[in-house]
Amino acid sequence: MNAADVIQWVIPLAGLAAIAFAALLARDVLRRDTGTPEMVDVAGTIYEGAVAFIRRQYTTIALLAVVGAVAIGVIIFFVETEQVADVPELAGLPIALMTAIAFIVGAACSMASGIIGMLVSVRSNVRTAAAARRSLVEAVQVAMRGGAVSGFLVVALSLLGVWGIFVIYETFVADVTVAEAPFLIVGFGFGASFVALFAQLGGGIYTKAADVGADLVGKVEAGIPEDDPRNAAVVADLVGDNVGDCAGRGADLFESTAAENIGAMILGVAVFAIATAAGWPNPEAWIFFPLVVRGFGLLATILAMYFVRGREDEDPMNILSRGYWATTLLSVVGLGFTTFVMMQTGIEQVGALGIPTWIWMFGAGIVGLTTSVVFVYITQYYTAGSWRPVKEIAEASRTGPATNIISGTAVGYETTFVTAIAIGAALIISAFLGMQAFALTEDPGRGAIFGTAVATMGMLMTTAYILAMDTFGPITDNAGGIAEFSRSEQSARQITDRLDAVGNTTKALTKGYAIASASLAAFLLFTAYIDKVNLIMANQGRAMMEAVNLANVPVFVAALMGAMLVYFFSSLAIRAVGKSAQAIIVEVRRQFREMPGIMDYSQRPDYARVVDITTRSALREMVAPGVVAVATPIAVGILLGHEAVAGLLMVGTIAGVMLATVLNNGGGAWDNAKKYIEAGHLLDEQGKPYGKGSEAHAAAVVGDTVGDPFKDTAGPSLHVLVKLLATVTLVLAPLFIR
Amino acid sequence: MNAADVIQWVIPLAGLAAIAFAALLARDVLRRDTGTPEMVDVAGTIYEGAVAFIRRQYTTIALLAVVGAVAIGVIIFFVETEQVADVPELAGLPIALMTAIAFIVGAACSMASGIIGMLVSVRSNVRTAAAARRSLVEAVQVAMRGGAVSGFLVVALSLLGVWGIFVIYETFVADVTVAEAPFLIVGFGFGASFVALFAQLGGGIYTKAADVGADLVGKVEAGIPEDDPRNAAVVADLVGDNVGDCAGRGADLFESTAAENIGAMILGVAVFAIATAAGWPNPEAWIFFPLVVRGFGLLATILAMYFVRGREDEDPMNILSRGYWATTLLSVVGLGFTTFVMMQTGIEQVGALGIPTWIWMFGAGIVGLTTSVVFVYITQYYTAGSWRPVKEIAEASRTGPATNIISGTAVGYETTFVTAIAIGAALIISAFLGMQAFALTEDPGRGAIFGTAVATMGMLMTTAYILAMDTFGPITDNAGGIAEFSRSEQSARQITDRLDAVGNTTKALTKGYAIASASLAAFLLFTAYIDKVNLIMANQGRAMMEAVNLANVPVFVAALMGAMLVYFFSSLAIRAVGKSAQAIIVEVRRQFREMPGIMDYSQRPDYARVVDITTRSALREMVAPGVVAVATPIAVGILLGHEAVAGLLMVGTIAGVMLATVLNNGGGAWDNAKKYIEAGHLLDEQGKPYGKGSEAHAAAVVGDTVGDPFKDTAGPSLHVLVKLLATVTLVLAPLFIR
Repeated sequence: MNAADVIQWVIPLAGLAAIAFAALLARDVLRRDTGTPEMVDVAGTIYEGAVAFIRRQYTTIALLAVVGAVAIGVIIFFVETEQVADVPELAGLPIALMTAIAFIVGAACSMASGIIGMLVSVRSNVRTAAAARRSLVEAVQVAMRGGAVSGFLVVALSLLGVWGIFVIYETFVADVTVAEAPFLIVGFGFGASFVALFAQLGGGIYTKAADVGADLVGKVEAGIPEDDPRNAAVVADLVGDNVGDCAGRGADLFESTAAENIGAMILGVAVFAIATAAGWPNPEAWIFFPLVVRGFGLLATILAMYFVRGREDEDPMNILSRGYWATTLLSVVGLGFTTFVMMQTGIEQVGALGIPTWIWMFGAGIVGLTTSVVFVYITQYYTAGSWRPVKEIAEASRTGPATNIISGTAVGYETTFVTAIAIGAALIISAFLGMQAFALTEDPGRGAIFGTAVATMGMLMTTAYILAMDTFGPITDNAGGIAEFSRSEQSARQITDRLDAVGNTTKALTKGYAIASASLAAFLLFTAYIDKVNLIMANQGRAMMEAVNLANVPVFVAALMGAMLVYFFSSLAIRAVGKSAQAIIVEVRRQFREMPGIMDYSQRPDYARVVDITTRSALREMVAPGVVAVATPIAVGILLGHEAVAGLLMVGTIAGVMLATVLNNGGGAWDNAKKYIEAGHLLDEQGKPYGKGSEAHAAAVVGDTVGDPFKDTAGPSLHVLVKLLATVTLVLAPLFIR
Repeated sequence: MNAADVIQWVIPLAGLAAIAFAALLARDVLRRDTGTPEMVDVAGTIYEGAVAFIRRQYTTIALLAVVGAVAIGVIIFFVETEQVADVPELAGLPIALMTAIAFIVGAACSMASGIIGMLVSVRSNVRTAAAARRSLVEAVQVAMRGGAVSGFLVVALSLLGVWGIFVIYETFVADVTVAEAPFLIVGFGFGASFVALFAQLGGGIYTKAADVGADLVGKVEAGIPEDDPRNAAVVADLVGDNVGDCAGRGADLFESTAAENIGAMILGVAVFAIATAAGWPNPEAWIFFPLVVRGFGLLATILAMYFVRGREDEDPMNILSRGYWATTLLSVVGLGFTTFVMMQTGIEQVGALGIPTWIWMFGAGIVGLTTSVVFVYITQYYTAGSWRPVKEIAEASRTGPATNIISGTAVGYETTFVTAIAIGAALIISAFLGMQAFALTEDPGRGAIFGTAVATMGMLMTTAYILAMDTFGPITDNAGGIAEFSRSEQSARQITDRLDAVGNTTKALTKGYAIASASLAAFLLFTAYIDKVNLIMANQGRAMMEAVNLANVPVFVAALMGAMLVYFFSSLAIRAVGKSAQAIIVEVRRQFREMPGIMDYSQRPDYARVVDITTRSALREMVAPGVVAVATPIAVGILLGHEAVAGLLMVGTIAGVMLATVLNNGGGAWDNAKKYIEAGHLLDEQGKPYGKGSEAHAAAVVGDTVGDPFKDTAGPSLHVLVKLLATVTLVLAPLFIR
């Protein structure tokens, strides 16, 4: 047993270590004090609402997943014949069972990490609010640790799930070799996508319907402040932060890590063949490499949690950044070590210029890590603080809501520029480095593709930390709401307000990160799809699909369908928010009318009823976009064939990434333009600040409200859609082959 | 000389007939009475403003075009070497000169049709307003005939230009054969695209900056009605209708017809080779077919103008529809006759099922004509009258501007669904029919591609009529403004209001038509690009580019750039409107402040100054998006190569078509939701209509204002961008080949 074999043990060990560490963090958070009885009271209401929604939502999703698993099993049973199956000996029932089981396990792991993470975050909020009464740093730590439980669980369960099912299939099923197993576990990725789609859609619709509904009827109509206890929709709004931002984004990134691990392993299979032919030692290392890198990412994040500390008078964002930089630098070390051990296996194994293969590939990984840092700063420029884009929107608010919307739309569209350039540069540079790594092999092009996979893996090393920062967002948002609601001390509220502002930034950053990783992954999964189709073609003794012919009418039409799908899907998601918000507005208005004591605090609004209405509406409305997302690639594949699906996949992914960028960043910029005016930075002709209540502020509130469903429902759901397109086509490829 | 040769004379004859007919129409319109002195006065001011803008704009564009021609000539001179040139004997100077001359002629024809058409339309407005004092039908006829001058000139000059330069090169330049000439005239299409880009951008920015500026400062701030003479920006607004909607759209469709004619002829070259090999008589007929069909389209439109008549109490839309249906049905006859004569050339020439080739191809043409009718109805459903989408936006206005914008965005996104399905169906059906037509040849796939070209040609037969209806829009809009401005009789104003509403519909229809034709053309031009690249590869003795490899990193990155480009370009265009509108608002506010007599009509606002400010701003702001549009494909081509350009072209086109659909239809729906509320169709809880001045109406005005730059600046400019991508890459393909 050599070093490259030994290092593979990092995968289960890091996964288990991360789960243990998450348990420690959860224990640490849960044994902290929960503040005043008022705080406990409102936190309890939020908890009940969140649990009720999650229970109903995940019951629905579980049912849909069982139906999905059976359908997939049946389809695979009939289409995976001897000529099509990756492993002809397993054709029929075995392959159908393995795919369906992988699907169920993927779905179950995703659900488990979502549910446990949310149960912790929904208890961390009140503890953060209580800690804010004593210390800023303590509040930051409570919120960050609460969020890290989600972060670690998501990444660890996805890693252990992929590794476990891989090892089980490879070890216990006869006829499955290490090179064939990756193709058999794609069902895991599809299961994760499937859950993520509905978790993100349902949660996203819930959170923004409640937010928009509460704002319109409270702030605009009744003229009461945000999070005011007289607003019957305010608890639903706080519940929404947890079920949308926390559980939804967790499922989104669970899917990313799972799908990208599997995609990278499939690409590793091709390298495995090259390595075997060239007589390199440890050819399997190329297949396991993605998982090992991910394991080191988890270890880096565990250590980095000890860097989340700072001074009381410090900007809380600095405290979080310290941990992020620690994660990134430790990841570089882990990445270097992994490439050194797994890719350096003999003197002959050198790339261009006589530089060893592992150094070239290490470079590709660094490109990925750098890209994630670049995206963090791009997103900050466009959506946080007071750089040019946010200022421009704030300035445009002077002339009313119309110019605010026009300006925000222009900014949202503009953000595609740096996004596309950054992604394009990352792909081209990592492909170049990968090609140099394989310069002396027979297939440098394969090295280029694997280089992009290594970049993706490098980028995803920091996922657990990013996700912890993301969940920090809803926890502090809730803490602020609880402080306001329970009329906490002024000093505590100041702290929660500062944390809330930071939380808005971290939430935006995560979306930038999710988009960047989705784009890199898209290319990787696209290539995996082509590999799988070619494997099937080879099994059938047919010529390989060397390239996709764009001048083929079905390919062009399928590509058109891909671009259309992202708009149509977003339209359904946005409309769902509008419809659900209408239902909330009607109910809150009714309560104001029929319970006149609410306005003078003598009557308590019926929060539970609004929570219930929102729950039912969100669950009903998530079905249509979900079905469209799953059905479109399948329908196109059956009608137009496997080559056309490649067109749909590519254009759907690119169009989805661009539209998600527009929606996420546009929404974030609108949000911050409003905050910019509220902070008094926008001055009128006499040099007096416009503030809350001014015409300009009212215009900015319109922009903020418009941005809500864009950035928290449609945008994040598009991330999921993009990856779902890849996993569904990867699993069902045999169905599309003509 | 046989029938297939004789029929080619239709091309010059129909072109000249259309020009003569346009002259007759212009004479008819211009000798009509011009109404009261007040009318003449304001019409004169509009005329002066429009002419001033057009003079400065076209001077700028002409200069840019000369620079462009020289640059192209130089580039072609150096890159079109013997190995690359379509005709090796012409390598170097001859090919450079021919391309540059074609570019200049294309640019000049486009400019001529734009200028003459606008000069007539800007004189038709007052005559329509005067006619409205007597008769609805007469007013419709004046506006429609004024618009038809543009329509006929655009189509006729594009037809004569392409045909003329083709015949000259083929006849007078040694070494140019009928099969090579189409490749040498692509410069004509590029010249037309180049002019169209700046004409549409400059005009689009002008018209919407003036519109938004006038509305915000007049209706919103000062509380005076639309087109009120006290608003200093009102003349600029009326000028804008002419320079944007009329001249801009004319250039857009000039480019469509030119680029698509040339693209179809290039595809015809491949069929020419098949026909020659198979020994069919008249193989050149396949190259000339697109132009002949276009000639019959012109003749059909001339006859159809006599159907534009009706009763005084009739819906004016019916009168226009009568002419449209006449054009369509006469086009079917012309199409059938052309396919019969040009494609039926021997008993052997049959397709599948023993059905003659010409019948299959006739079917493909019918598919195109049907598609144009389908798009007319789709656009009406989404943007006119009171179907579900417009109602939904109006309903959402109850809860304020934010929900109005959210709902309108959802509707805009939703419109991609039917659009993509209709385009996809047209492509697949016409390709299927084309493949049947060539079922017995060696290359049925080529028949499929030519089938889509025939569908495109069928669709474009009605261009002149559609363009006449489009120009009807700004003429009646202006007529309404003149009536309001000169305080015309109530009865006349009622008539102009009715015509104005119809004009809004016809403007929207044209955009739907332009998008559909751009999509079909995109596929055609994309295939022409691949043909050209392969021709060059063959000249170099290299293997053909059979297919574009999507799993190639540069292709993927270029595709990403294509999707980004459409957003970034739109962002610049939308921002340009915002900036120019701000400049107008500042000036109008200054006039209100410094000239207090304006409000009680005792002082006349300085209209000319606002016109001048708008002119300078629009011309300055059109440069950045224009340069981005031209430079991006060139930069990508040089950096990433010819295969990557195919990815950029395909994804840029698809993304552009989808985004234009969203912007055009979303904007149109917002506009009509406002009109729906103004017409009193939206009822409150007591069943009382919300009207002008209600909160819901104010919310709908916000949506309408947001939609303005979407539907009249960015959307139409995207049509041009999509086709420019195709022509610039077609001309500069040799530069990209590695």
